[in-house]
Amino acid sequence: MDPSSIVVLLTDFGDSSWYIGVMKGVILSIAPQTRIIDLSHNVSSQDVREGAFILGNGYGYFPQGSVFVCVVDPGVGGERKNIIVETDEYYFVGPDNGIFTPIFEGNQSIQVYQVISEEYMIEGRGSTFLGRDLFAPVAARISLGADPSAIGSELSSITTVSGSEPVVKEGAEINGRIVYIDSFGNIITDISRDILVSVFGDSIGSGLKVVIGNKTVDGIREYYGQEYPGKLMAVINSWGYLELAVNMGDAWEHLGLSEKRSVSIVVTRREQSGGRARS
Amino acid sequence: MDPSSIVVLLTDFGDSSWYIGVMKGVILSIAPQTRIIDLSHNVSSQDVREGAFILGNGYGYFPQGSVFVCVVDPGVGGERKNIIVETDEYYFVGPDNGIFTPIFEGNQSIQVYQVISEEYMIEGRGSTFLGRDLFAPVAARISLGADPSAIGSELSSITTVSGSEPVVKEGAEINGRIVYIDSFGNIITDISRDILVSVFGDSIGSGLKVVIGNKTVDGIREYYGQEYPGKLMAVINSWGYLELAVNMGDAWEHLGLSEKRSVSIVVTRREQSGGRARS
Amino acid sequence: MDPSSIVVLLTDFGDSSWYIGVMKGVILSIAPQTRIIDLSHNVSSQDVREGAFILGNGYGYFPQGSVFVCVVDPGVGGERKNIIVETDEYYFVGPDNGIFTPIFEGNQSIQVYQVISEEYMIEGRGSTFLGRDLFAPVAARISLGADPSAIGSELSSITTVSGSEPVVKEGAEINGRIVYIDSFGNIITDISRDILVSVFGDSIGSGLKVVIGNKTVDGIREYYGQEYPGKLMAVINSWGYLELAVNMGDAWEHLGLSEKRSVSIVVTRREQSGGRARS
Repeated sequence: MDPSSIVVLLTDFGDSSWYIGVMKGVILSIAPQTRIIDLSHNVSSQDVREGAFILGNGYGYFPQGSVFVCVVDPGVGGERKNIIVETDEYYFVGPDNGIFTPIFEGNQSIQVYQVISEEYMIEGRGSTFLGRDLFAPVAARISLGADPSAIGSELSSITTVSGSEPVVKEGAEINGRIVYIDSFGNIITDISRDILVSVFGDSIGSGLKVVIGNKTVDGIREYYGQEYPGKLMAVINSWGYLELAVNMGDAWEHLGLSEKRSVSIVVTRREQSGGRARS
Repeated sequence: MDPSSIVVLLTDFGDSSWYIGVMKGVILSIAPQTRIIDLSHNVSSQDVREGAFILGNGYGYFPQGSVFVCVVDPGVGGERKNIIVETDEYYFVGPDNGIFTPIFEGNQSIQVYQVISEEYMIEGRGSTFLGRDLFAPVAARISLGADPSAIGSELSSITTVSGSEPVVKEGAEINGRIVYIDSFGNIITDISRDILVSVFGDSIGSGLKVVIGNKTVDGIREYYGQEYPGKLMAVINSWGYLELAVNMGDAWEHLGLSEKRSVSIVVTRREQSGGRARS
Repeated sequence: MDPSSIVVLLTDFGDSSWYIGVMKGVILSIAPQTRIIDLSHNVSSQDVREGAFILGNGYGYFPQGSVFVCVVDPGVGGERKNIIVETDEYYFVGPDNGIFTPIFEGNQSIQVYQVISEEYMIEGRGSTFLGRDLFAPVAARISLGADPSAIGSELSSITTVSGSEPVVKEGAEINGRIVYIDSFGNIITDISRDILVSVFGDSIGSGLKVVIGNKTVDGIREYYGQEYPGKLMAVINSWGYLELAVNMGDAWEHLGLSEKRSVSIVVTRREQSGGRARS
């Protein structure tokens, strides 16, 4: 596979960070024709799982041969390895801390290389900033056509994080978690359409209910406009996951919960008669 | 007109959104040489009027042939149409919800096409995310030279929103509103230099006063440095609109108002003698 | 030197500003092939010193011939000059207000040109917005190969701001200040590795202590992982400056200080016995 001369950046530096601009300068100094695209710089600080979620859902939309630089790296400077992951379609450069879990899980065959040689590092000022001094230069060279096997030495394994996998109880209940809250306040869960269908069959619409915090939502809609403005609703979103939303509003604010990690989301069949109070 | 191979993005997704990065991946997958520029992703959430204001003031600075993708779309998934607007100089792709009002008002002749065929959609995961699945692919193809008339079917009308037009009272008072507060806290109103001149004549400087909230500002300045640091002032800004500002400060914070929509701005002639307390 | 056809933008407009998108449109209208990279748009509002710090630490990572447009400009519209600075490797365009201090201090020979002619301005709407109407067009032309000496008239001097230089007391104490707090809450000081070595010699590790606010930190580490999560620590960061950080945390929040300008940072040798309470 030929690299496409596109480097895609994913970090937790925050949009406000000039560190990103400097990484771009380093890439262009090595590969002046390479194009650089930001996937996101707003992964929650040091949240490897959230980074993996965004990478896993986003990378497939980019051109074949794109080189992804992923810097969500709470262990920087410590023992974890610096790696290149190669699939049939893409390259990935970053720390071996689990951020590449969806690449490992989503591809039949991948090759992993550890970058050890300092030949590919640039000499930055001060102590090492791997995004600038190693990951950016390595990605730039791959975008120019360098072969990962010439840059690193092959590894037989890769670190993975157990994604937040929803728990299925007796084929009648799915217990999931929040993976991401977007800038509109929409709450994206780890409960995919696939798992909903595997548990409840093809009709995953009005026959189900979703409990989050102390609120209950009846039915899963197809788009936001199907619910009154201001009312909490559940949809399968455009990434294929169950999402809690408020039409014309902010679901996260609506719920008034304090910390996304501790919230559970429970999907069950609606009782056919009687029933609880609803939100 | 030939497309310039530049696609410009305007959304309310927020800079922090990786949805934007994915849209860029989709565009580059179809049109690898197209260049992508962000106009803004910080239109206030679902605020079509603000999006129209930014588009209307910004688009003319881009190269001929640029293709604008505008996704401020509170009605996504509902009945409103997906359209392409073509002027003598530019292309615009997005929802028919009023966001293209300034294009309609600012151009002698425009052509509007509704995209109905699913031929131009990509198959995303999950339910449809139009920015990713329709608007980005359509813009990519136009940037490659596709003719809008081959993509959509001609429409005879376009949805417009009544801009927040200032009200003129008896040729002696203009009553306007806030359209935008920038990141410095400068308050941009809908009162243009043109309307000021049409009501008060060419001398729109020291002879006027501006009332906002419970503050009165005497005179309209030419640039920030003409007032003492910390003092509320009025200027005609670099987009041709009356703006409230504080030299070296934040005017919005200075005023301490709570909600931009309910604030009125009144411009009148200064009384020639006596006079009220000033801010 | 040939320009590289890369224009780099540094402003205090905030990422949310569509003014940046418009500047890009202006550049591309003049120089359609020029590539535009954002260094940062989050310089603290009107903070020329912070802008100079970011520019000084960042510019050297960009390709030779890059043209930097720097718009941190509290005096816009006033008396200060609009200039082009040329070094052996780069071009810089912006206000003569001190933002180019590190360029002056870091280069043997520079040439400075004042742009007076209105030939290079574009006609924007409303009053002049120099980033859009002058700096962007001038940078675009330099990126196309225009010679600064043909655009401006040579100046013999440039405005500099006294950087926040740390004060050294009797070879035994360095008294510095905060120059920047990054998006992780890491606190970057003006105390460079070089000045630490010049005062305390080569061993600037465990033998030193750092006092900030009412906290004392013993020793200067090499990377974040060398301290327990949650504990305040000092490191020499990847730009060569002393930085206060919290492993897996936010140092600025940890310290609970209110205003970065009034905080002093004091580095001394640790007492070899006894000792104060530590954070």
